Amino acid sequence: MIVVVCLNPALDVTHHVDAVDWGGVNRPRAVQARPGGKGLNVARTLHALGVDVLVLGLAGGITGAGVEAALRERCVPAAFTAVAGETRRTFSVVDGSVAGRGVTAFYEAGPEVGEEELTRFRRGYEQALEGATAVVLSGSLPPGLEAGTYATLIETATAAGVPAVLDTHGEALRRGAAAGAAIVKPNLAELAALAGRPLDLATATAAAGQLRGAQAVVITLGPDGLLAATEDGCWRARPPAAVPGNATGAGDAVAAALAHGLVLGRPWDERLRHAAALGAATAAAPVAGEFRRRDYLGALSAVTVEEVR
Amino acid sequence: MIVVVCLNPALDVTHHVDAVDWGGVNRPRAVQARPGGKGLNVARTLHALGVDVLVLGLAGGITGAGVEAALRERCVPAAFTAVAGETRRTFSVVDGSVAGRGVTAFYEAGPEVGEEELTRFRRGYEQALEGATAVVLSGSLPPGLEAGTYATLIETATAAGVPAVLDTHGEALRRGAAAGAAIVKPNLAELAALAGRPLDLATATAAAGQLRGAQAVVITLGPDGLLAATEDGCWRARPPAAVPGNATGAGDAVAAALAHGLVLGRPWDERLRHAAALGAATAAAPVAGEFRRRDYLGALSAVTVEEVR
Repeated sequence: MIVVVCLNPALDVTHHVDAVDWGGVNRPRAVQARPGGKGLNVARTLHALGVDVLVLGLAGGITGAGVEAALRERCVPAAFTAVAGETRRTFSVVDGSVAGRGVTAFYEAGPEVGEEELTRFRRGYEQALEGATAVVLSGSLPPGLEAGTYATLIETATAAGVPAVLDTHGEALRRGAAAGAAIVKPNLAELAALAGRPLDLATATAAAGQLRGAQAVVITLGPDGLLAATEDGCWRARPPAAVPGNATGAGDAVAAALAHGLVLGRPWDERLRHAAALGAATAAAPVAGEFRRRDYLGALSAVTVEEVR
Repeated sequence: MIVVVCLNPALDVTHHVDAVDWGGVNRPRAVQARPGGKGLNVARTLHALGVDVLVLGLAGGITGAGVEAALRERCVPAAFTAVAGETRRTFSVVDGSVAGRGVTAFYEAGPEVGEEELTRFRRGYEQALEGATAVVLSGSLPPGLEAGTYATLIETATAAGVPAVLDTHGEALRRGAAAGAAIVKPNLAELAALAGRPLDLATATAAAGQLRGAQAVVITLGPDGLLAATEDGCWRARPPAAVPGNATGAGDAVAAALAHGLVLGRPWDERLRHAAALGAATAAAPVAGEFRRRDYLGALSAVTVEEVR
């Protein structure tokens, strides 16, 4: 079983409007509400791959109940720790009159989480680790939790013999790596922010040294694929030509595939091939956290992986 | 007890953003979620006046549960009939960088309601009428319910000896009036839409004839107050000078005050004085459905009411 930690889940609400009247009253043509947040995308991807998964996280208020109900509906097993605050919503407006980038998004920050609530979460987490083959920790921390939260959770997992995959940014990422994560998965912008300078393909691998302590750093390059710096060597995976779709969940699909490959004991080149293919298939699907099996299998044979020296 | 019928309640979510980046990602500075829909504003106003009130309506899904929880929190008694669809959200973005009218609103339509669900609602409605002194029917109908829905509910109330106050628009308003509503409360635009021509203060009273069957027509004129055409005569109520605030709930406050005055047996001039004052006090408050007692009492002595011949 892979445990997916989602400390700041969301209910993603999307309104599709034919032509938005800014400053006026709009009546959306279509409305979608889905469980969101990076961790939940990872969990849904693993679930779709047929992996036994358990979501752990914090949920509060009516929006938290909405996230739990939506996961139940999708048959994704989850056990949230109740918090007093209200789980966040993200609200996206898709303006049909704007070709291409017509999406305006509003992200709530999430509930203020207290020490006692995190302690209750940790109790369930430690219990779940007993049956876990890996843990994925994904997304931002809710307000009130300190940057070392993921690091502590990774130390607990490592002590229990469970490898951890971490996908977050900033200080929480740096400290999570230092705590001995098996894999950290920044994107190029997140790595550049840590390095304090712009990065490109040529300089990215060296900058992965910012994440000392992690056994492997996998950098997502968007449509350019993946770059991995591991204890066994460095690799570059290139997906087939990019297709239009929704890139939002692609990085989460990569994190899911990396955890899956880790559990299966796939060698790094195969692990990256699957990760790049699943990322590409997810980017091609209209909804974050979903992919077409056909796209995944097609991409698998089209991805090229080469060792970088 | 006054029964307030709210067939299409809403959860009103407001995001306050310092300066909206249209087409980008925004992180709101403040988030509010409140029970909304005209009927719920009426109920909250009556509750604040100290009136014994019961909200009846349709609620579904996690958003319906959110509305119910929010009303419980505000101690407003409610008994919703569960529907399979999802109760609607309204989503408003307040752009802090735009002086004055910086609000963009997105209104979901509400759940598709089936015949069987309305039948279950009617059962609870008939029961509640036994203890009711008046019923207020407010707001739009959810998708799936026909325009005659309010008319049928008004006939049932009238047969039970309970006078009905109706605040809606279009065909539902016309048929509700024809069914014998005690008071209908269109605004000038709603009346003009029914009359099929633009209206002003001089022509509005005559156009009230569009609403044949109602015992009284009270037309709200925004900051210009009220115009009433009743079986006892016609009146005009003028509020004190308009103050900046939130006009959204002002019409609902007028409906609440009219129902309250009806139950108390206030003569029409006094009924209108209270309605205009409560409308003005609600318009002056920042949140729909709320008012400051001080503003209400102050407005009461400032409103002028005169009979129109």
